[in-house]
Amino acid sequence: MTALTEAIDTLVTGNRILARENVVDAFGHISMRHPDDPSRYFLACSRSPELVEADDILEFALDSKCIDDRGKTLYIERPIHGSLYQARPEIMSVIHNHSTAVIPFGVSKTPLRPIVHVAARIGHEVPVWDIYDNFGDTDILVSTNDQGQDLARAMGNGPVILMRGHGATVAGLSVQDAVMTAVYLQVNAQLQMDALRLGEVTYLHPGEVDIRLARSQKFVGNDRAWEYMSRRAGR
Amino acid sequence: MTALTEAIDTLVTGNRILARENVVDAFGHISMRHPDDPSRYFLACSRSPELVEADDILEFALDSKCIDDRGKTLYIERPIHGSLYQARPEIMSVIHNHSTAVIPFGVSKTPLRPIVHVAARIGHEVPVWDIYDNFGDTDILVSTNDQGQDLARAMGNGPVILMRGHGATVAGLSVQDAVMTAVYLQVNAQLQMDALRLGEVTYLHPGEVDIRLARSQKFVGNDRAWEYMSRRAGR
Amino acid sequence: MTALTEAIDTLVTGNRILARENVVDAFGHISMRHPDDPSRYFLACSRSPELVEADDILEFALDSKCIDDRGKTLYIERPIHGSLYQARPEIMSVIHNHSTAVIPFGVSKTPLRPIVHVAARIGHEVPVWDIYDNFGDTDILVSTNDQGQDLARAMGNGPVILMRGHGATVAGLSVQDAVMTAVYLQVNAQLQMDALRLGEVTYLHPGEVDIRLARSQKFVGNDRAWEYMSRRAGR
Amino acid sequence: MTALTEAIDTLVTGNRILARENVVDAFGHISMRHPDDPSRYFLACSRSPELVEADDILEFALDSKCIDDRGKTLYIERPIHGSLYQARPEIMSVIHNHSTAVIPFGVSKTPLRPIVHVAARIGHEVPVWDIYDNFGDTDILVSTNDQGQDLARAMGNGPVILMRGHGATVAGLSVQDAVMTAVYLQVNAQLQMDALRLGEVTYLHPGEVDIRLARSQKFVGNDRAWEYMSRRAGR
Repeated sequence: MTALTEAIDTLVTGNRILARENVVDAFGHISMRHPDDPSRYFLACSRSPELVEADDILEFALDSKCIDDRGKTLYIERPIHGSLYQARPEIMSVIHNHSTAVIPFGVSKTPLRPIVHVAARIGHEVPVWDIYDNFGDTDILVSTNDQGQDLARAMGNGPVILMRGHGATVAGLSVQDAVMTAVYLQVNAQLQMDALRLGEVTYLHPGEVDIRLARSQKFVGNDRAWEYMSRRAGR
Repeated sequence: MTALTEAIDTLVTGNRILARENVVDAFGHISMRHPDDPSRYFLACSRSPELVEADDILEFALDSKCIDDRGKTLYIERPIHGSLYQARPEIMSVIHNHSTAVIPFGVSKTPLRPIVHVAARIGHEVPVWDIYDNFGDTDILVSTNDQGQDLARAMGNGPVILMRGHGATVAGLSVQDAVMTAVYLQVNAQLQMDALRLGEVTYLHPGEVDIRLARSQKFVGNDRAWEYMSRRAGR
Repeated sequence: MTALTEAIDTLVTGNRILARENVVDAFGHISMRHPDDPSRYFLACSRSPELVEADDILEFALDSKCIDDRGKTLYIERPIHGSLYQARPEIMSVIHNHSTAVIPFGVSKTPLRPIVHVAARIGHEVPVWDIYDNFGDTDILVSTNDQGQDLARAMGNGPVILMRGHGATVAGLSVQDAVMTAVYLQVNAQLQMDALRLGEVTYLHPGEVDIRLARSQKFVGNDRAWEYMSRRAGR
Repeated sequence: MTALTEAIDTLVTGNRILARENVVDAFGHISMRHPDDPSRYFLACSRSPELVEADDILEFALDSKCIDDRGKTLYIERPIHGSLYQARPEIMSVIHNHSTAVIPFGVSKTPLRPIVHVAARIGHEVPVWDIYDNFGDTDILVSTNDQGQDLARAMGNGPVILMRGHGATVAGLSVQDAVMTAVYLQVNAQLQMDALRLGEVTYLHPGEVDIRLARSQKFVGNDRAWEYMSRRAGR
């Protein structure tokens, strides 16, 4: 395999892991910045991640126009991906999903915060973006670059943002990094919901989150989890 | 395949998807209006949807009498289907189920309302029908045309109605439309239960629901979800 | 197959269905009164229901002594079965389980009551038996005929009893009847827990429960559910 | 098979059961004291338990230094294992996990206590250890022998300890004993969360817990559960 073929293979594995771990269902998508050209990114055509094959992967410019769509239908919400790659040069992979554990935190006043060490990678507190604030009544989809840029601004430098009545977007330094953050975002949301039922909760201390964030940026431990999740996903 | 064989094949796929997504279990059923004769509809004989084959599909008049039962046992609750096709010419598919996420909303005072964009297709607020109101103590089953017509009246022009202590009924413009509504009704019910645990909830804005309803009536996006769910259901 | 071989085959299927539907796990068991001799019953040796084969089925007297144990280890809690067959001639099958949805109702003050039509077969309200009341500190297991008879008395004429800190016991007019009651007991417990989160709940009306109980005693509808659950259980 | 090969095979089965029962995911590990040399223990290299093979098992001294790592990466949290074997000669197996049902009890004020007979083996009340108390801001991992010994001290003579924002550690008299305790710890946590929703809860009486603890130390009943769980785990 060439380096590019291998990178695209990793992107396909990312699709399958997200499906296997129930982070995405019929909807949701994961992209990867072109490893050799920062002004381009790769994303599947409009298929459910569980079914995505290497042949479904297309190339896009940062304005989310497709270089060559080969007659395939495209995801409507490409601007989520393009806008984040444009706003943040360090980001190499973006995931958008409707993970059911996460959605309740986007429609309530309870902030989603890391409660377990493996989820410190979601950051100190996850912000919520509401498309209604700047765009009024819509179909809720992020279908224009204006909307994508508004989302990117609200996300700041963080790895995750919730979208009211919709889902979440995750940004990572690699496909593996983004996938792990999306998986543990979901784990944390479920744990936090359960813990809040038991009364007052101790979240991770800010210093602990900082130490863990520095650690996860070095990808320590990812090899084991990536091997495990790939195998579960049949890759 | 002829057009009719293909339509019946789609109805079988609908049965299997509903089973795979846990919208139905041993009980529950899905019907389709005859594509060429609006005074007839198709529905399986009395088998669990997971096991339904093309050969199990029978033809019914709108009073829910079977044209030729070939010696097979029939579902008791056929009047749900016939009454809806009679009352609403635009409806092409009907689903009745006992989806466990939905039942709690039928026995409590909390209205089921769309909380996430993909579930806007359930309408602004889901009404609840109680068979006890007009029929007193029964076995709860909708076993007469009188009961079916009462249910259809309570449903109005909406896509969904809950049935107290029983389940839900969904009406769609196609098999695909009805299946998607039944699946996302269940998703929304689960999400709403989880979100309500976290405190005050922001539901979709009325304008957002209207825009999404208009969108789902054009079936945009259904191809992706239908392909995904068919594959998961082994079709 | 002879009638007896067939009956034992049904008992094996009952074991497998209970395992598949998560009503039993490593523990729990189902027995059947001998179809030709009311003073005997059949029950597996000490194996988990998912693994039980026809060859594991042994014959017992109503004092729960084994007729011929063929060197196999026996379940300790046989007195649950023998005591119920002794106390109630109409009972043809008994299930004991630790179904996780049911246990919370045995340790709290909230009565388990039917909330959905398919669960009316559990009766108007499920009683709770506490082994501590008459036997003080024990290992909680029903290991003597005295304990079994105390449990049978507390159960009265009903189909179900909860056991504090332990599980539930179900009695049926046939293997199929007992299995369906055990499955829908679990479904109802889960639904009731979810519904109570939403506030005040409307349970089935007493008249509805009576009508449904009379109906389920005629086994109407069981063929469809039994076929479905057998297939899911690989039988 | 020699006795040692067989023991290692049991340790591999323990890994697989913990994975199958969702007690561990990508992370978590189980070790076994060397049956012939109490100053050594066996533990896999850094792989997810679902994937562990006999060839992945390595030998460690009680200071958690590896005797011969054969070039493999090691789990960081080995000191959990070594420190417990050092502190408690009776312990023959140790499990560390991030079981999602258990974590909420480590971050709230609600004590985890046995609510069902099969979970009495977790002891009267499960203590919580917070790494922050003696070590301040860390990455939360138990990566030094000092931290491991602090954890062992907090655990006392009990079979289980929760770790705030992290998971749990379980100690057993055999691999089978530790696995059963870890599985039923998780079952109890889920049941207790559900029961607390229903209001005031009756936990097992102290005398009942004592009787059950004495019973589980004789491994009564374990053969049935071990056979069942091994089969579910594909062993």
